[in-house]
Amino acid sequence: MDYQSILNEIAEEIAPLLNDGKVANYIPALAQVKPNQFAMTLTLFDGTQHSIGQSDTLFSIQSISKVFTFTLALKFFSTDLYKRISREPSGNPFNSLVQLEYEHGKPRNPFINAGAIIVTDTLINHFGSCELACKDILEFIREISDDLSINSNDVVSTSEMEHGHRNLALANLMKSFNNLDNKVEDVVSTYFKHCALEMNTKMLSRSMLYLANHGSDPITKQCFITPSQAKRINAVMLTCGHYDASGDFAFRVGLPGKSGVGGGIVAVVPKLMGIAVWSPGLNAQGNSLVGTKALELFTDKTGLSIF
Amino acid sequence: MDYQSILNEIAEEIAPLLNDGKVANYIPALAQVKPNQFAMTLTLFDGTQHSIGQSDTLFSIQSISKVFTFTLALKFFSTDLYKRISREPSGNPFNSLVQLEYEHGKPRNPFINAGAIIVTDTLINHFGSCELACKDILEFIREISDDLSINSNDVVSTSEMEHGHRNLALANLMKSFNNLDNKVEDVVSTYFKHCALEMNTKMLSRSMLYLANHGSDPITKQCFITPSQAKRINAVMLTCGHYDASGDFAFRVGLPGKSGVGGGIVAVVPKLMGIAVWSPGLNAQGNSLVGTKALELFTDKTGLSIF
Amino acid sequence: MDYQSILNEIAEEIAPLLNDGKVANYIPALAQVKPNQFAMTLTLFDGTQHSIGQSDTLFSIQSISKVFTFTLALKFFSTDLYKRISREPSGNPFNSLVQLEYEHGKPRNPFINAGAIIVTDTLINHFGSCELACKDILEFIREISDDLSINSNDVVSTSEMEHGHRNLALANLMKSFNNLDNKVEDVVSTYFKHCALEMNTKMLSRSMLYLANHGSDPITKQCFITPSQAKRINAVMLTCGHYDASGDFAFRVGLPGKSGVGGGIVAVVPKLMGIAVWSPGLNAQGNSLVGTKALELFTDKTGLSIF
Amino acid sequence: MDYQSILNEIAEEIAPLLNDGKVANYIPALAQVKPNQFAMTLTLFDGTQHSIGQSDTLFSIQSISKVFTFTLALKFFSTDLYKRISREPSGNPFNSLVQLEYEHGKPRNPFINAGAIIVTDTLINHFGSCELACKDILEFIREISDDLSINSNDVVSTSEMEHGHRNLALANLMKSFNNLDNKVEDVVSTYFKHCALEMNTKMLSRSMLYLANHGSDPITKQCFITPSQAKRINAVMLTCGHYDASGDFAFRVGLPGKSGVGGGIVAVVPKLMGIAVWSPGLNAQGNSLVGTKALELFTDKTGLSIF
Repeated sequence: MDYQSILNEIAEEIAPLLNDGKVANYIPALAQVKPNQFAMTLTLFDGTQHSIGQSDTLFSIQSISKVFTFTLALKFFSTDLYKRISREPSGNPFNSLVQLEYEHGKPRNPFINAGAIIVTDTLINHFGSCELACKDILEFIREISDDLSINSNDVVSTSEMEHGHRNLALANLMKSFNNLDNKVEDVVSTYFKHCALEMNTKMLSRSMLYLANHGSDPITKQCFITPSQAKRINAVMLTCGHYDASGDFAFRVGLPGKSGVGGGIVAVVPKLMGIAVWSPGLNAQGNSLVGTKALELFTDKTGLSIF
Repeated sequence: MDYQSILNEIAEEIAPLLNDGKVANYIPALAQVKPNQFAMTLTLFDGTQHSIGQSDTLFSIQSISKVFTFTLALKFFSTDLYKRISREPSGNPFNSLVQLEYEHGKPRNPFINAGAIIVTDTLINHFGSCELACKDILEFIREISDDLSINSNDVVSTSEMEHGHRNLALANLMKSFNNLDNKVEDVVSTYFKHCALEMNTKMLSRSMLYLANHGSDPITKQCFITPSQAKRINAVMLTCGHYDASGDFAFRVGLPGKSGVGGGIVAVVPKLMGIAVWSPGLNAQGNSLVGTKALELFTDKTGLSIF
Repeated sequence: MDYQSILNEIAEEIAPLLNDGKVANYIPALAQVKPNQFAMTLTLFDGTQHSIGQSDTLFSIQSISKVFTFTLALKFFSTDLYKRISREPSGNPFNSLVQLEYEHGKPRNPFINAGAIIVTDTLINHFGSCELACKDILEFIREISDDLSINSNDVVSTSEMEHGHRNLALANLMKSFNNLDNKVEDVVSTYFKHCALEMNTKMLSRSMLYLANHGSDPITKQCFITPSQAKRINAVMLTCGHYDASGDFAFRVGLPGKSGVGGGIVAVVPKLMGIAVWSPGLNAQGNSLVGTKALELFTDKTGLSIF
Repeated sequence: MDYQSILNEIAEEIAPLLNDGKVANYIPALAQVKPNQFAMTLTLFDGTQHSIGQSDTLFSIQSISKVFTFTLALKFFSTDLYKRISREPSGNPFNSLVQLEYEHGKPRNPFINAGAIIVTDTLINHFGSCELACKDILEFIREISDDLSINSNDVVSTSEMEHGHRNLALANLMKSFNNLDNKVEDVVSTYFKHCALEMNTKMLSRSMLYLANHGSDPITKQCFITPSQAKRINAVMLTCGHYDASGDFAFRVGLPGKSGVGGGIVAVVPKLMGIAVWSPGLNAQGNSLVGTKALELFTDKTGLSIF
């Protein structure tokens, strides 16, 4: 298939929508990003990349980091992880406390904030400290992205901590249900640090290859998780990857994917490629408006939906 | 692949679980079914069928009928349907009124009871009367199953109506929000009639071929819906097909599927086959316990998960 | 105290507000009432009445009837009644299904719709049929009001039944939890019949004397309920009598009271008098806007709040 | 009335229940209290006190302090306070986050935890710092209790802070809705400090006189708040003073009152007296089991219910 032509077509078709979304504005560091930017990259199993737009521009990956921390937690704790976290769609906004209270502090899935905070808590347990957890999460992301230059933006993570009262509420609520081992502030600040990682669409699409390839990197041949674990991460991405718009994303795009409020979305075409798209303007559910549209156009044009 | 051997293995492995589930007991007609029954059938695109167990035994398809009515409603009303119904997982039990009240009478998706009642309402509008709707829904199901013997069990549907207060509550609530055109009793009794259809796993796996094949029957070549509609029905089955255990089903099985409280489950392997499995004992979420396990074993053994 | 002068003052002070409320419009029969009407009557223990405004004009008492049916149910079933109904404020709108589902079909109190439907169900049980229940409820109300002319408006009750889908939803939900003995339609139509009773403020203020006087009529000396029961009905009126504005009514008025969407409100000054006020325009919580204000002025001017 | 004999009778009648309740055990300092203790004191307008039981034993007043801080906030901010806090019963447990999320961070009333945290926040604003707020709240309580020996127990407040994750969750949630001006930790620790005040039933019943006497101390003649404010505090105590058992308390006791998890309850007989009762064993709703019973017996025997 001529992927480059398809990317060109997509770029043309999404152009009129570039000003329709709304950039996340809850922290200054994110609010300053210019809305009308766009990038998309496909990475194939042999390492070939096809890109369009500002595919070298770094942006805040935010909740996309939840895929990586979930991968590590699953690797270290296997099914024990599900004692502290479920794997069902929430049917609620990403930061809702309602369901968490009814369900006694056990989050619905690892891709809503409460779930990712639990995942972070398990990783602090595993690595022994917040600092080690941060260091080793970063190392893992550099490894699967094959890029040592990736770093976290301290201005963003500090700013999130200052405005992160909703996440502190979630963490305190889970702590009150004895579902958090470490100190609330420690877990939340570690969580914010990996949310503040900066990557571009080239790095992110590259980082998805292990999920497209049964848990192993098709280029380096390194095995990160079992095929069964990879398949299950994809399943959770499909059912829960876009908060309360996960059904709509599955419906329109038909690929496992995960979005972040920085405007990035990653997606996986099993056995074929990793995809990343970026455009900072968000739709009402907090997912990249143009990014979602671009992925929808991609599966329409290529027939590469899993359905 | 030697499908028959795989089915044999599955039958052996699920045998110890045959008494673990609980048969649906809210109406006498369903409660009388013997729990330790099992059947599974695969139907390939050329019509070849592989079966194990009581694959000729008829059972009440119950909520599996929602796939067929959703197909017809989508065919007749296309995207207009989504004005009255969403396509998001509910994060709630199949008959909950809570979300329906907060969301002003618009059901989360066509596969929870409230959603299927709306779908039925649209079909009564389209066909002009309850009688015609019943007749034409039945005809469609006979057509895609290639079996004229399929019928509804009046004892079951009458019994459901007598004990159907929860569904009447849902329908009245939607009516109070002006999201129901026809009379409450008419819509609910029509809904119960197509839930009371009786089929076996041979018929049901055959009936899934149009969803596996982009909307067209691979044998008769008849086109029922567009490829895009077929893909989207599969997506909604994956995210919403098993009520509040949809995430778990996607996680364990990894195929679009739909269950019914009669113990049946249908599943779709895109571009390859339709599957039906039956065992009356249900798990805590109201899905066939052994049926879910059998499908999990199937994708584990064949690698045919979509992820 | 010069009650007549106080009523005159009140009438003057509420005059500018007479067009601020919104007449209930969910059924045609209620929607036709002219909004800018007002009446208020005090009835003392010796039968003396002080009135202002259209105190002879009949209006639909609607939910005020819940006080009378609760009285009868308490009289016949005593504390057994609380097995099927609680006595806590709901913290929710008058017709919400949410709490009812979480609390397994047991209504919060007898003054929300679900609770009054249960009360009606117990009265049908007690009297033996819907017809007898209707007849005997009416007789009781005529007795405590000392007025044989009181009647129900069939146009209103029929119209309510036609538009009563929310109440049918509540009743079906409770039926599904086995908390309704009689047929859903029978109970709800009986409920609508006593809601459709027509009275004026003279009758209604007279009807409150037994609650102001420990359960006995201070004029006829007839004893209806025990002092303890009367005290407890007053307590439930105070905490639950105005739906989700009960706290506000206690705060501003400080008297046990009950409102109806027809614009009427009854109130009790223990050991002193019964009060009724009427003005059809409602506030956002569905209580008479001018009626609430008039009662607030009354306790401010007289110091007759119970606090 | 011979109040002392009545108290003697009550002590006798509650004796068999003294081991039925469950002492609050969420912090060690409270869990150590012996359960089978009981005290009750009435304070009349001339200062006469009638007591029974351990009426000199100090206990942690906990949520009773919410009455005092609400009084001060109302004094300083008058109706402006209601921009940040409502006055409706919650229909939910005392520490629920559900309603707070649906209602965008505005607590239902000043007597649930979230509401008292907002009240504390306004007092920090008024007094200028946490330290001054603590000092002046203490001074006010000493003044209305006419007892300079009252103090806070630092072991209790420190322990509460260490286990106060639910309250930190509430405060963070309100902060995320911009309904908290000061730092989360500062407000919550100030809140815990006034909850940890230690008083006995003599002090507490004395402290209620201003609420029984239209806002002024009947002994010292000092005026603390307006008659209208006093009446309204009593109304809020009646509708909201016992969390999700407020309706039951109004029903059984029929007096404005406020309970604390330390086992204390204060109550007001308007125009007559202040009451305090203490017994550490709690019922399922978190109110003193024996204390509630003692107050119920008191109004039954004296007829002093407001209804």
